[in-house]
Order: sequence, then C-alpha cells, then structure tokens
Amino acid sequence: MTRVALIGAGVVGSAWSLVFARAGFEVAIHDADPAAAARAPDFVRTALAALEAQGLALPEPAESIAARVRPAASIEEALAGVDYVQESVPERLAVKIDLYAMLDTLAGPQVVLASSTSGLPASAFTEGMATRRRCLVVHPINPPHLIPLVEIVPAPWTDPDIVERATALMRRIGQSPIQLRREINGFVVNRLQGALLGEAFRLVEDGIVDADEVDRAIADGLGLRWCFMGPFQTIDLNARTGIAEYCRNLGPMYHGLAKEQADPRPWPDTLVAAIEGTLRKRTPTEDIPARQGWRDNFLARLVDFKRRQP
Amino acid sequence: MTRVALIGAGVVGSAWSLVFARAGFEVAIHDADPAAAARAPDFVRTALAALEAQGLALPEPAESIAARVRPAASIEEALAGVDYVQESVPERLAVKIDLYAMLDTLAGPQVVLASSTSGLPASAFTEGMATRRRCLVVHPINPPHLIPLVEIVPAPWTDPDIVERATALMRRIGQSPIQLRREINGFVVNRLQGALLGEAFRLVEDGIVDADEVDRAIADGLGLRWCFMGPFQTIDLNARTGIAEYCRNLGPMYHGLAKEQADPRPWPDTLVAAIEGTLRKRTPTEDIPARQGWRDNFLARLVDFKRRQP
Repeated sequence: MTRVALIGAGVVGSAWSLVFARAGFEVAIHDADPAAAARAPDFVRTALAALEAQGLALPEPAESIAARVRPAASIEEALAGVDYVQESVPERLAVKIDLYAMLDTLAGPQVVLASSTSGLPASAFTEGMATRRRCLVVHPINPPHLIPLVEIVPAPWTDPDIVERATALMRRIGQSPIQLRREINGFVVNRLQGALLGEAFRLVEDGIVDADEVDRAIADGLGLRWCFMGPFQTIDLNARTGIAEYCRNLGPMYHGLAKEQADPRPWPDTLVAAIEGTLRKRTPTEDIPARQGWRDNFLARLVDFKRRQP
Repeated sequence: MTRVALIGAGVVGSAWSLVFARAGFEVAIHDADPAAAARAPDFVRTALAALEAQGLALPEPAESIAARVRPAASIEEALAGVDYVQESVPERLAVKIDLYAMLDTLAGPQVVLASSTSGLPASAFTEGMATRRRCLVVHPINPPHLIPLVEIVPAPWTDPDIVERATALMRRIGQSPIQLRREINGFVVNRLQGALLGEAFRLVEDGIVDADEVDRAIADGLGLRWCFMGPFQTIDLNARTGIAEYCRNLGPMYHGLAKEQADPRPWPDTLVAAIEGTLRKRTPTEDIPARQGWRDNFLARLVDFKRRQP
C-alpha cells in the first residue's frame, strides 16, 4: 500500500495528510467542502515549514512531501487504488452513518475503513453495513503529526485481521498504536485524562491549591517521568525490586485516597470561571492562538528530543 | 541565610544536600548513624559526576559543591548558625515525635523546621511542641536534585510567615514550590498520581489494554503536553477560546466517565502480578538498578532540555 484516502479535511484530516505524506504515501483527500480539501497541501507546507524553522530535519524536501497530498473531487476519486481510508468528518452520528452507508458499497470489501472519532464507537455508525467487519476506530491525539499515540478500537464485529492491518500501518507511518480489546466510553486516553482532571478540579474546588499549582505539580513533578515512562514504569522503578514491592507498601494508601476520590463531581461554571481567571493571568485570551503555536513548537522539539535519547 | 542543617542522611537527605550545596549553601548533615552522614559528600560527588558525564554544565566545579556538605556529629553541631532545618528521618511517627520534641528546645525559636515526610502531616508529630508554629512539611519528589517540584504543607498552627520563608528558600535553591492551603491525605502529588493509577489499574483489570499500552498512552500521548504545561493549561489550549469552551463541550462527557470511575478498587496481588509480568518483559528484575540509572539520566537531560526552551 502506497496510497491512502482521507475523507474529511478539517484540523484532524489535514494533520493526517501530513503524517501519511511524510511517511511516503500518496494521499487523496476529499471533503464535502472542496475548498477545505484544496487547503490541505498548504496546511502541510506551513506545518513542515514550522518544523524546519526549529531546526528539525525532514525526511525529504517539504515540497516533495506536500506534493503527495492531492485533493479529490469525489469520494470515488479518493478511493481509487487505495486499501485504507481514514475518515475524519464532523462528530455527528447522522453524518457518519450516511457516509459509512455509502462507503459500504463504494469501497472494495478489503478496504479498511478507519474513523478518527474521539467519542463515537464504531458500532454506533457501522451496524447496518454489509461490510462492517472492515470498520474500526483509529483515533489520533491531536495533532497526530506531533503526537505519536493512536488508539485502535474495534467494534464487536471488526475482523481481528483488520485490527492488525491498521496497527501495522500506524507503526509503518511512525505512530505509536495501542489496541483496545473492546469499545469503552472515552477509550483509554480520555479516561486517563478524565481521572486526572477529576482530581485536579476537586483540589481547586476544595481550596487546597490553585490551577497554576496543579499544573506545576504535574509539569515540574509527576509529568517529568510520565512523559517518557508512563505511570506503570514510573512506580515499577520507584521500589528496589519493582512494582509488586511498591504496591505492597503503598497500595493501601492509594486505596484510601481512591475512596476519598470516589465522588464524581460536575465542573460547575463558577469553578471553571475561577480556574479560567488563574489561567488568563498567564495567557490572556488574545494570546491563546500564539500560545497554541508555542505549544506545537514545544511538542515538536520534545518529541525530537525523546527520539534522540539512548 | 547561607547555611542549613539537614537531619537524616538517607536517600532523601543526601539528595537534599546536593540541592542546597549546588545553590551555594553550606550544608551540615547529621544522621543517627554517623556512617550515613559521612557518605553524603560522596553521594554528591557521584551524582554530580553523573550529570557532567551527560554534558550538563554545573554552576561550579563538582569538588567545590561537594566540599560544602559537612557531616555533623550531633544535632547541636548541625544546628549551629542555621535558620532552616530540613528533616528527612525515617517515616515512623514515634521517631519524628521524639526528634521534634528535641528540636523544640535545641533549635532557636525562629529556625524553620521542615519535614520531608511524604505521608505524615506535620500536625501528627508537632502538636505537643511549644514552638510548633515554625514547623511544616516541605515534601520533595524524589530525587529532588532532578525533580524541581516541592509540596509545602502547613499544620493548622503553622505561622504563615514560616510558609512564606520556606517557599522563598525553595525558589532560591531552584526548586518549584507549591503551597497547599491545609493538610490533606496524600498531599497533592500522590492524590493526582493515585487518580491516574486508579484508572490505569482499572483498564488493565477490565481487560481493555495491558500495562505497556497504558504506559504508551501517557508517554507517547497525554504526558507529552502534561510535562511542560500541566493538565489545566493542556485543556485550556485545546479550545479556541480557552478552558470555559472546553468544559462546556466536554464537561458532561467527563462527568459521565467520572461516574464509571467512582469505584475505588484495591489492587489485588493477581492483578499486580499480571502487570509485573508485562513490565518484566521490558525490564528483567536484574536490570532494575540499571534502568533506574537510565531514568535518572533521562530526567536530568529532560529538565535541562526544558530549561533551554523559549
């Protein structure tokens, strides 16, 4: 496979076009709005220029990469000669159901149909398809050209071979895929994020620390190990003989804390406003776009730094 | 203040001696076991050599830093001429109560008495002291010469001026202090870690992913932003106008997940053993010490990388 079809050319679809093209693939990108698909090559040029501006090496000249991203006027045109489709249309169930009903017949039965959805399980929009066994979720963390992780989530009827093909493709293009064994609300990433955020909001609501202090507790503390080892390897190396010793010593303490945290609170507007007040001191509203650019540049350099470590 | 006393020369106390000496302080370090205190300067030399071996610059020659760490034969000798004591004796309540009863009279009433305890609130071992108003917790994340975060936790009777003095001192020696407004089980860092670990164990126990996939979900995904922005700034920059927009769109989804997560499970031995099995494939038991060295070197380079970013 040296050619893929992307359907949907918004923020997510455009970033996917960069990931595939950078890895050497020919990319046909279609959007219901032809102007959106037409903008994808320019997105790729701009994003690659931002990487080069920070001294990060590209595998080949930016223009060669961007030239492999070609807008397609129709879904049929995009599908020609591909055996993998990455769908990134808006997160509306009716839109996805209609699209997959079309793909059911338009795309040859061996073509993998992968959805970028962050919230809808594949079972919600593929149930009625004759060829539903080749459908699954391949969920990137935005933006995928900077963040390697991808969640692969099968529907109950997804063929295991399709899961393996999608996983192998993600590895081939330089991403870091994890395979969920079954559908679950929020997948893995948002469940982990939600668990941390729940306690973060609780600590601020209870008046223990402010939002800036929570951010530093992670950025200057826990996050330093998590960003290259993850939470399990972190605790595994925090005891002389590994995780079993750690859990023997500290499991009861964490179970006690978990009981205090078993308190699923909503995030009321007044609390969110207080946190926003803290955050706006660091980043005024008008500076958010610039700060997002700073974040993306930082991410690109951080991932490059990690790749260069022994 | 250019001189501090450290009481307790184990792993934590020794690392503190490096932090203070590197910042230019004279460090008197005492331990009930004189051999432990005598080893502190060598710990400092070895740790500084490890930093230099990775090309990281020291503020002055390693020997000049190590020469400022001097074992003290008695608590009285350690206290001479200091107005700050960092206590890092074993986490046993009786040991701390006895020590603070001694310090109550041995240390002049203006001397800050700061405990490195990770689990005991200062109120548990300072209540009976005449001078308890100058006592508090100053909890490092191990090892403090690599990880900047410090949790400052007052007892109900701690003088606010003492909190400010301890905070200012931590900033002066290059750490990143956060001030908890009051005592809370687990302080902030272990509460945040526990929240994430609780969901991580749950995902493995429920057969969704394995431990290696959880670690990659963080290390190749969420952790990349958390390690330089923290969780609040991360979501603040994930919506065009900031965190309020993010919470309007996704707050109900996270509240739904929180209800599914309000299930405080212990970590049974069989689950821990399964996770250990996954981790041991990456790091066999006999390689744990080498892997800990790799972690520390990675942390040192990561913190240096972060400091060099715009």
